[in-house]
Amino acid sequence: MEKTLLKVNRERLLETIKVSSSIGPSGNGGLNRLALSEADKNMRDIFVDWLKEEGLEVRIDDFGNIYGKRKGKLEDGPSVAIGSHLDTQPCGGKYDGILGVLSALEVIRILNENDIETEYPVEIVNFTNEEGARFAPPMLGSGGITGDFTKDYIYGIKDAEGISFEQALTDIDYLGDSKNRLTNVKNFIELHIEQGPILHDKEKTIGVVQGIQGIDWFTVKVTGKTNHAGPTPMENRKDALVAASKMILKVNEITDEIKGLKTTIGKMDVRPNVTNVIPGEVEFTIDIRHEDNELRSHAFERLKEQLSAIALMSEVELTITTDWNTETTLFAPAVKDAIQEAVDKFGYSSLELFSGPGHDAKYMAGVADSGMIFVPSIDGISHNEEELTLDDDIEKGANVLLYVVQKLAGTK
Amino acid sequence: MEKTLLKVNRERLLETIKVSSSIGPSGNGGLNRLALSEADKNMRDIFVDWLKEEGLEVRIDDFGNIYGKRKGKLEDGPSVAIGSHLDTQPCGGKYDGILGVLSALEVIRILNENDIETEYPVEIVNFTNEEGARFAPPMLGSGGITGDFTKDYIYGIKDAEGISFEQALTDIDYLGDSKNRLTNVKNFIELHIEQGPILHDKEKTIGVVQGIQGIDWFTVKVTGKTNHAGPTPMENRKDALVAASKMILKVNEITDEIKGLKTTIGKMDVRPNVTNVIPGEVEFTIDIRHEDNELRSHAFERLKEQLSAIALMSEVELTITTDWNTETTLFAPAVKDAIQEAVDKFGYSSLELFSGPGHDAKYMAGVADSGMIFVPSIDGISHNEEELTLDDDIEKGANVLLYVVQKLAGTK
Repeated sequence: MEKTLLKVNRERLLETIKVSSSIGPSGNGGLNRLALSEADKNMRDIFVDWLKEEGLEVRIDDFGNIYGKRKGKLEDGPSVAIGSHLDTQPCGGKYDGILGVLSALEVIRILNENDIETEYPVEIVNFTNEEGARFAPPMLGSGGITGDFTKDYIYGIKDAEGISFEQALTDIDYLGDSKNRLTNVKNFIELHIEQGPILHDKEKTIGVVQGIQGIDWFTVKVTGKTNHAGPTPMENRKDALVAASKMILKVNEITDEIKGLKTTIGKMDVRPNVTNVIPGEVEFTIDIRHEDNELRSHAFERLKEQLSAIALMSEVELTITTDWNTETTLFAPAVKDAIQEAVDKFGYSSLELFSGPGHDAKYMAGVADSGMIFVPSIDGISHNEEELTLDDDIEKGANVLLYVVQKLAGTK
Repeated sequence: MEKTLLKVNRERLLETIKVSSSIGPSGNGGLNRLALSEADKNMRDIFVDWLKEEGLEVRIDDFGNIYGKRKGKLEDGPSVAIGSHLDTQPCGGKYDGILGVLSALEVIRILNENDIETEYPVEIVNFTNEEGARFAPPMLGSGGITGDFTKDYIYGIKDAEGISFEQALTDIDYLGDSKNRLTNVKNFIELHIEQGPILHDKEKTIGVVQGIQGIDWFTVKVTGKTNHAGPTPMENRKDALVAASKMILKVNEITDEIKGLKTTIGKMDVRPNVTNVIPGEVEFTIDIRHEDNELRSHAFERLKEQLSAIALMSEVELTITTDWNTETTLFAPAVKDAIQEAVDKFGYSSLELFSGPGHDAKYMAGVADSGMIFVPSIDGISHNEEELTLDDDIEKGANVLLYVVQKLAGTK
């Protein structure tokens, strides 16, 4: 493979994305293609046709995941899987997830038109319901086949209208067979927009993703004393909101101490929430992220101490509950190295970074050597109709994917 | 009057309060006697009977205010008016307002049974809808007769079920005549529970109320940038909640600089209010109270500067809107002096203080020399079924009212 530095067909790839951009338009330049909706079915049908046109063996599994397998020389060898998801948020963009699936298709097309034989099979994947916008939680298709969720659990999840995941699969005729699930897989590689501003801000083209940051979610409840604003002297107050404000600043300041730590208070409820009543109770969430699991847990222990001290000084009660946590996923060196090698060969600018949000590659990393390629999203905007990745960056990202597939699947 | 130091009949007063406490019980030891409700009508009917038993000339005006006049020697002389309100919050207490009306009745009873002639008429008043719980804003009965609200405005106000104030008056048969309104009034004296903890905390019995604190209400809107918690580096964030937290602490800290200033942030809304999304917008209210109008307005100007500086440093937008304001009401020296004189004669402990909440005396102060007598509420609790004023304090408060009436109405 040293001799040939194959590139994707830029125009064809952009044309394919354009077709996708017309299916389930949101009305403001974005897409509204919720998982297992009519629009999702339309996209799936077209996608299946495209796979068949490339001579791939198409399978649908019991979670509605779509696979197209291109045989390798080792007929029973493990696959190099590539892809992402075609579903979107209700006011989503045209690139999130979609780019990973359609670039994978372009890779298959290039391999086909160049008659390239690979040692291992190459398998394209469209995972069901990555967004979790219709059926929460997200990443049910990938988490289903990796065993992170049970089938019973997934089938029982209902959307806002009470329609179950299983029913929705049946309704659009994408309820396949469990024996079609992706197994015997060597690698999973997912090309994706960054959904953050780092590549854009630093003017780099390719993100060599090191892993997915671990996340801890907590709820903090501060209980003071509800009282009337008029008669209650300042020194008699147990104002839950003033105490909570001090805590919020501490939660923010700790990121100065620990490099790379991100903390967010996104949700806050004040009770009784009346202009002339001193708040007796405030509840807020903390989202803590860091790729180093130990540093993240250290940060939380520090915060617990600091928040308790504030509570003591402010004469309020404090309870902290863990709502959810997920450890950091580290991607496989073999995949990261292949991506870096591609970047070097093509002479693209690049950056090593961690993903903040979760992706299908997170679950896939549990069953195969996995990795991700990020391309810039302008201003870091995503989950938004204004989401934009430039054509040049799309082409370069797809070229990297093409290279990595050749490298990991093995070409003569 | 120097010779006689008349006292109220404690047992009779407590018995009268007990009757009131049985009309419109809330189920948890408090009262649910919303203005112009069936319970309010029942209380009014009994009250009117009591007035008639004392030989008073009973009038109902076009706002449903009930008056009972006891003639003075100067037949056309201006009245010394005493009273408050018999309506309650939906989960209200047994003393708020009620104490002022029923103590006034006890004063009349004492004057009657001692055959005391006064120079000026003494007039008992029950004002309609002081609480504002059914028909907002509060204090419609007093504000109506003083001209602070127009009749059209008051009649058009509707409750949550769409029933107008006028209709509600008609429904309970308390729509009287505008010519019955209280006019030609010399003084208004209102006995009331403190609705705050100061007397209770400082173990004083009588509050010599200096006036009603002015209040300013503002809404502060902080606009940052909504972004995902995962990918957005700390240094790229424009977190509206972190900026707002700094502002809240400033609003709280300014009370250390200005003695007697009270600031409250009671209401706060965070948007979009999602755990893993950096808040793009936060709106909160500020309630500022001080008896000195200039100091209050100075405090606000200082806060505007400080909040603007925080907004600038935090790279967020700031808008501050004035929602409502009311200047400080100062009570008449003649009334305050009479209250102090009574306290001294009886040897009660006392304290000069300002009222935080508004009262009917606020509007009455615009048309007559007015004042208020406060008695302690345990732990400052009010607008609550647990509201409690001790029998001893009720008796002492009523004794002070009795003295003040004799003093201001003039006894031989």
